Amino acid sequence: MNFLEQKILESGAIKSDGTIKVDNFLNHQIDIDVMRYIAIELKRRFGKKPVTKILTIEASGIALATMLATMYDAPVVYAKKGQIYNGVEDKYVSHAFSAKQCHMNNVFVSKPYINEGDKVLVVDDFLAEGQACLALIDIAHQAGATITGVGVAIEKGYMDGGEKLRNAGFQVESIAIIESVDIEKQAITFKQRT
Amino acid sequence: MNFLEQKILESGAIKSDGTIKVDNFLNHQIDIDVMRYIAIELKRRFGKKPVTKILTIEASGIALATMLATMYDAPVVYAKKGQIYNGVEDKYVSHAFSAKQCHMNNVFVSKPYINEGDKVLVVDDFLAEGQACLALIDIAHQAGATITGVGVAIEKGYMDGGEKLRNAGFQVESIAIIESVDIEKQAITFKQRT
Repeated sequence: MNFLEQKILESGAIKSDGTIKVDNFLNHQIDIDVMRYIAIELKRRFGKKPVTKILTIEASGIALATMLATMYDAPVVYAKKGQIYNGVEDKYVSHAFSAKQCHMNNVFVSKPYINEGDKVLVVDDFLAEGQACLALIDIAHQAGATITGVGVAIEKGYMDGGEKLRNAGFQVESIAIIESVDIEKQAITFKQRT
Repeated sequence: MNFLEQKILESGAIKSDGTIKVDNFLNHQIDIDVMRYIAIELKRRFGKKPVTKILTIEASGIALATMLATMYDAPVVYAKKGQIYNGVEDKYVSHAFSAKQCHMNNVFVSKPYINEGDKVLVVDDFLAEGQACLALIDIAHQAGATITGVGVAIEKGYMDGGEKLRNAGFQVESIAIIESVDIEKQAITFKQRT
């Protein structure tokens, strides 16, 4: 069991709807040692693959992206989401369904910040249905960039986002893959890497 | 002239409404060397003052807060803003006016993440009217925490946020303080530290 899996078991909580609450160390309060570990381990797994941009989405992906950026010495670009106030001509725009807000969100990046030739590492805290990652990949592709891989902290292995991305040929690395959640027993099992 | 001031002159753009666009290195694309410099310089200025939490607000404060957290080895807490979906009993709530959206936003932090006894460094990318910083300070005070100081990347010295905070007795450190912006000449002057 790795450091993140251990942290999830120790500090995560299973809510009545089966979602796992990790906002005491990952996405509201941030345990900087956990974040550092995740970034180091992601970098190790992508090995010598080139990365010229770390691409994530506001807000909860930014901390991990920043940590990775210090290791790759590459810029972070974080996509914005929501209403577009001042025209779309200068932006790459994609869309992602927000389960929390129950509607489609715009996801956008100003055109100068992703370019043809960029080798993009897509990063997020969670991978569930893959909506956010697919939108980020779409944006990178609109810019003519290539995808080095997708790195996330926690993947919900019982949802199909990871499968969709892997089937599309992307290297997806998730530091903890949750296989199942038992609400009654408050038990979480992880899928081990093969 | 310091590294950030130089970067603003080289890479910032003055928009027709007099605001300065720095989203190519600070708050959309993030130049990790600039961010690292800002964090190192803020840490130097706060010297040996104790910091147990880095408190910021989503989304654009998170990168700087994360960088500072690696230096202080302290957790980041980022306040969320906007609609509150699941009750306020477990949250500290304050309010900040958003000039962009032209309405009052809720700003909130889950209660367990700021505590009595915490020494809080409030961090943000911009300080203008001080709405966000004042909301974060209010939240820290609701929790019984004390404020170590307020650290920001860019202060708009021609707006009154910095004055309000300094008059209230807080140590405010801004790495670049913009004194004036000349739209016609596309010129920016900085206020020097005394």
